[in-house]
Amino acid sequence: MDHRVNYKVYYEDTDSLGVVYYANYLKYLERGRTEFVDQLGRPIRAWNADGYYFVVYNLTIRFRKPAELGDTITVITTFSLPSAFRGLFRQRIERDSDVIVEADVEVVCLDQRRELREYPEPFQSFPSH
Amino acid sequence: MDHRVNYKVYYEDTDSLGVVYYANYLKYLERGRTEFVDQLGRPIRAWNADGYYFVVYNLTIRFRKPAELGDTITVITTFSLPSAFRGLFRQRIERDSDVIVEADVEVVCLDQRRELREYPEPFQSFPSH
Amino acid sequence: MDHRVNYKVYYEDTDSLGVVYYANYLKYLERGRTEFVDQLGRPIRAWNADGYYFVVYNLTIRFRKPAELGDTITVITTFSLPSAFRGLFRQRIERDSDVIVEADVEVVCLDQRRELREYPEPFQSFPSH
Amino acid sequence: MDHRVNYKVYYEDTDSLGVVYYANYLKYLERGRTEFVDQLGRPIRAWNADGYYFVVYNLTIRFRKPAELGDTITVITTFSLPSAFRGLFRQRIERDSDVIVEADVEVVCLDQRRELREYPEPFQSFPSH
Repeated sequence: MDHRVNYKVYYEDTDSLGVVYYANYLKYLERGRTEFVDQLGRPIRAWNADGYYFVVYNLTIRFRKPAELGDTITVITTFSLPSAFRGLFRQRIERDSDVIVEADVEVVCLDQRRELREYPEPFQSFPSH
Repeated sequence: MDHRVNYKVYYEDTDSLGVVYYANYLKYLERGRTEFVDQLGRPIRAWNADGYYFVVYNLTIRFRKPAELGDTITVITTFSLPSAFRGLFRQRIERDSDVIVEADVEVVCLDQRRELREYPEPFQSFPSH
Repeated sequence: MDHRVNYKVYYEDTDSLGVVYYANYLKYLERGRTEFVDQLGRPIRAWNADGYYFVVYNLTIRFRKPAELGDTITVITTFSLPSAFRGLFRQRIERDSDVIVEADVEVVCLDQRRELREYPEPFQSFPSH
Repeated sequence: MDHRVNYKVYYEDTDSLGVVYYANYLKYLERGRTEFVDQLGRPIRAWNADGYYFVVYNLTIRFRKPAELGDTITVITTFSLPSAFRGLFRQRIERDSDVIVEADVEVVCLDQRRELREYPEPFQSFPSH
């Protein structure tokens, strides 16, 4: 059950090579994770206010094809919970049926003192692999 | 006849003061202008390919209230054509009925050698003031 | 007595038109203001920790020439204090002796509740015009 | 023989969690690679003009500690050439002696049609591992 959300590529996303700047794909990925969290019932800001912080600590990304100005891209996100403290977002960005980018994003749950805490309830129902 | 488009505020848009970073409002404004142009019938990239470049040369912006993570903001755009070479976008960003930002953005039309050229036909039907 | 600081233009700063993206000039301007404040003796973060926030509420910017990848640009900043609550940064960005961008940036001093407060002492010695 | 270059963290780099936004570390890394290339004798723009494009296709990054507003960080870069077409940048970002971020960045050399081409001469003298 993949989560999907679309974005358009604007000038702000591109660089002088005429394609999306490599760091900006991480913005799309983070938007996708944000929308994934939101549709579980509470926005990120509410989780933050309750002392839950979801922090990326490891990321692997493969850049397959460039996206360009005006493209509509789709961010596709699946989530698993390998441990109570650590979530794994498998994400990819597609344009039509082309894969633009693939990424594995490991995200820990921290409290206000930046100590590990368990993911809250709605995340616990996801598979561990 | 205002053009309106909505965006959500993501982490990428904010800074460590907890609100949207001031330069990032210009990204929202540019997205609004891009969508305005697109709905006239041709995307910006097609105009660029035909040698029409729309370049901001003067901008005045007033920051009234801060937007925050998770806010949905609306970019509202109106266009006039004071001269054949120079367009004026009056834009504002609202959250609910609060005005976040107001801006006047003067945009010239340039050709590939960065010389002034007349705005193409669909823009000519807009008022001069 | 202008304050001057240099930056190189990287890919991150450019867009697919091959020049610096318009919103990114505001980042250079803000870096220039930050360095201006720092050389008065205390970094911005220390002012923030003491409850002084310097917030842009009005900005006028003229884009004269484009900067490009690899350019070294100079941000030139002068400061005046038209009122106890409101500073005016006159800034420009140059490459060699070309003016790239000119801007007037009005910055208010706020406290933690976002109420106006007087600029702290080291800023009070600047002219009011 | 590591290449080292320093940057200050500005507001533009941070997000509303009070630390550097995760995608922005990739900007620092790219600045570090740009400076590494420049000190080999020709700036990136000159290589691009000659039809050499250095494009990231795979990146692994570990986020160890957060950097904050006002920090001075050091980007440390080493380069090897595992194959004639593929460079490996091992990079890390430090603040004082703390490791903030570690990354392995695989970069291919492409020509104007986005086909693989061999790295040019000054890169060929680097070790293959």
